Amino acid sequence: MATGSPISGRARFTACGVVTLTTDFGLEDPYVGIVHGVILARAPSARVVDLTHGVPPQDVRRASYFLAHAHPYFPRGSVHVAVVDPGVGSARRLLVATDRGHAFLAPDNGLLGPVLSAEARVRALDVERFALPRASRTFHGRDVLAPAAAAIAAGLEPLDAGTGPELEIARTPFAQARIEGDAAEAEVLFADRYGNLVLSARGDDLAPEPERWRVEARGHEIPVRGVYADAAPGALLALVDSFGALEIAVRDGSAVARLDLRPGDRVSLRRTR
Amino acid sequence: MATGSPISGRARFTACGVVTLTTDFGLEDPYVGIVHGVILARAPSARVVDLTHGVPPQDVRRASYFLAHAHPYFPRGSVHVAVVDPGVGSARRLLVATDRGHAFLAPDNGLLGPVLSAEARVRALDVERFALPRASRTFHGRDVLAPAAAAIAAGLEPLDAGTGPELEIARTPFAQARIEGDAAEAEVLFADRYGNLVLSARGDDLAPEPERWRVEARGHEIPVRGVYADAAPGALLALVDSFGALEIAVRDGSAVARLDLRPGDRVSLRRTR
Amino acid sequence: MATGSPISGRARFTACGVVTLTTDFGLEDPYVGIVHGVILARAPSARVVDLTHGVPPQDVRRASYFLAHAHPYFPRGSVHVAVVDPGVGSARRLLVATDRGHAFLAPDNGLLGPVLSAEARVRALDVERFALPRASRTFHGRDVLAPAAAAIAAGLEPLDAGTGPELEIARTPFAQARIEGDAAEAEVLFADRYGNLVLSARGDDLAPEPERWRVEARGHEIPVRGVYADAAPGALLALVDSFGALEIAVRDGSAVARLDLRPGDRVSLRRTR
Repeated sequence: MATGSPISGRARFTACGVVTLTTDFGLEDPYVGIVHGVILARAPSARVVDLTHGVPPQDVRRASYFLAHAHPYFPRGSVHVAVVDPGVGSARRLLVATDRGHAFLAPDNGLLGPVLSAEARVRALDVERFALPRASRTFHGRDVLAPAAAAIAAGLEPLDAGTGPELEIARTPFAQARIEGDAAEAEVLFADRYGNLVLSARGDDLAPEPERWRVEARGHEIPVRGVYADAAPGALLALVDSFGALEIAVRDGSAVARLDLRPGDRVSLRRTR
Repeated sequence: MATGSPISGRARFTACGVVTLTTDFGLEDPYVGIVHGVILARAPSARVVDLTHGVPPQDVRRASYFLAHAHPYFPRGSVHVAVVDPGVGSARRLLVATDRGHAFLAPDNGLLGPVLSAEARVRALDVERFALPRASRTFHGRDVLAPAAAAIAAGLEPLDAGTGPELEIARTPFAQARIEGDAAEAEVLFADRYGNLVLSARGDDLAPEPERWRVEARGHEIPVRGVYADAAPGALLALVDSFGALEIAVRDGSAVARLDLRPGDRVSLRRTR
Repeated sequence: MATGSPISGRARFTACGVVTLTTDFGLEDPYVGIVHGVILARAPSARVVDLTHGVPPQDVRRASYFLAHAHPYFPRGSVHVAVVDPGVGSARRLLVATDRGHAFLAPDNGLLGPVLSAEARVRALDVERFALPRASRTFHGRDVLAPAAAAIAAGLEPLDAGTGPELEIARTPFAQARIEGDAAEAEVLFADRYGNLVLSARGDDLAPEPERWRVEARGHEIPVRGVYADAAPGALLALVDSFGALEIAVRDGSAVARLDLRPGDRVSLRRTR
């Protein structure tokens, strides 16, 4: 999925000891550090990597986007733990999955839908097996997912951490652009922290010459450029970002402030001759 | 102390190579990275974990709270370095301690008071032995505590890093709730970054049925719930947090903005029939 | 250069497995985590340390300052990757360097100028050799520098990662104070996040008795103190910071708010009898 993705095809999971964490915990509190501790106490040779803890609070979709684009850069055999969990303490399940040589642990709230491929195998996590004594009702990242991640990083077959039958979960790819010849329509997925508007169109959609396209939005005709520096300061531009997605930006400024576009809004693209 | 705490009883310290850092340094500057570097230069196989560097500046009490609740989740043999140090450069000592299989390094400013148990053994750190050449007067975390932590992580007996006699330091547990039958009184300890008000009452104080209690504060009768989602958006609730403490929250809002309560203020609790 | 610097003299580079990262990426997005992943996928036993990702966006000079003062605290054989790169995607080269037993990877935009000594050896990085398949135009930290860092951390001789002849790059030390007997003139380098004004004068310039000097700025005569606590709350003071630089501070306040001084402004120093 991501530019430069080093993995593809079906692959058996063989633990490499790497565990990644993707959460909305922030870094002001010791929550993230504690998760590291729980993992190291059970898997002393694990390598725990913070993918990011800056997911906007409870933004499950953003966590999916980050994880889908980031995990291919990690070695096969990595365990990816994602905790953005508005339903913590409710009856929602936790999931364990393997896909293309990676393992995943996350709440069953749609987070893994856009991350997993058709080859993925998924079970409900055996919560009772991994829960710490006196587990809390509000911090399953620490009390259930971290011990499970440690066990998998230390060699447990991921699906053996599950219980019950294998599950079919809804695979919900991110919105895609509709391309029809020289015209296309795309959706605004989200605004990033710079105010760039990430679209559902991808650089591959505009191949072989992305710079022949322009984006039409709120009365502006926005040219596709190669890099930010190709636009004048303050000018609108579109470009293919480092995850391969088309985004609208303002050089040295904020596209979201300029254009009043929100997630779900649609924009048109047109190829020039 | 913490929910799910995996350690208890007296235990000899055997280094496991893990070093945790708890500071008010923030992450904008390279200070934290440099502390990692000093440790890795002296203990190449150490595993350095950032517990948090987001302690509010000079808030020694918050650092104590974080460290007291977090350290039990780390493996025995961990070295915990805490640097919140308004008196850096003054005559205050640095301390080294062992307690229940863990080691601690911190300024002698009360930080370790609520962290250590009655079994702890404490000495003044031998500063001259560990100080880097040309040590600064303002960055003892880098120049003294990091080298000492590296030595202990690499196998030095913690108390052998000290000098002079063993010390009796004031053990100053956090305020506790006073329980009398169906009534109790608790203190506001602090507001966390979400605006939740953490109280000195603990879930154990309200056992076996916490949800039969309510908190009376500023004219509100606040029910104790199991999870945030049990309250309506915008409603006040109390709940037992992931560290086992009772806290007052507003679902999707800020209790500190709603209630005008500050650290040290008292609230009443009452059990309903 | 830094206080307590443990390295000096010419030294051959022998990889120790440590890789440090200094960027302006921030921590809200998964960019930093992905760089860790790319390195661990290629050098599984590497130790990746975040020096800081809080460099102000595109502030190449600040990154230089941080790296120059921080790298000596890391073990010899460390690989230091710095990515503050306003020209990403343009024709600027990437550089690989060795200096006093350390290796450096950074854009050729002046970042390494104040970091390297006269003994450094520098080449243009062989970008084609290290670039990931389908490398982006906007994220060379992930797509080029991380794979190169992994190769060097795993044993590749740093200069063998280069191409073409050895380069002479401009070594651009930070501004220095001009000392003439009992008078000196210094430049404001930058304001740090506390509002302290870091000057080009160093503690060594004021030896042996820094506290006999005072700084004259905007009509104030500012005494040099040993530590912050030596000044009254709200008072202006100057002191030698933990990197050995003289800085102007306000105890419990902001010097930049008080004095209206900016980077490049000059201040006078005078020694009292």
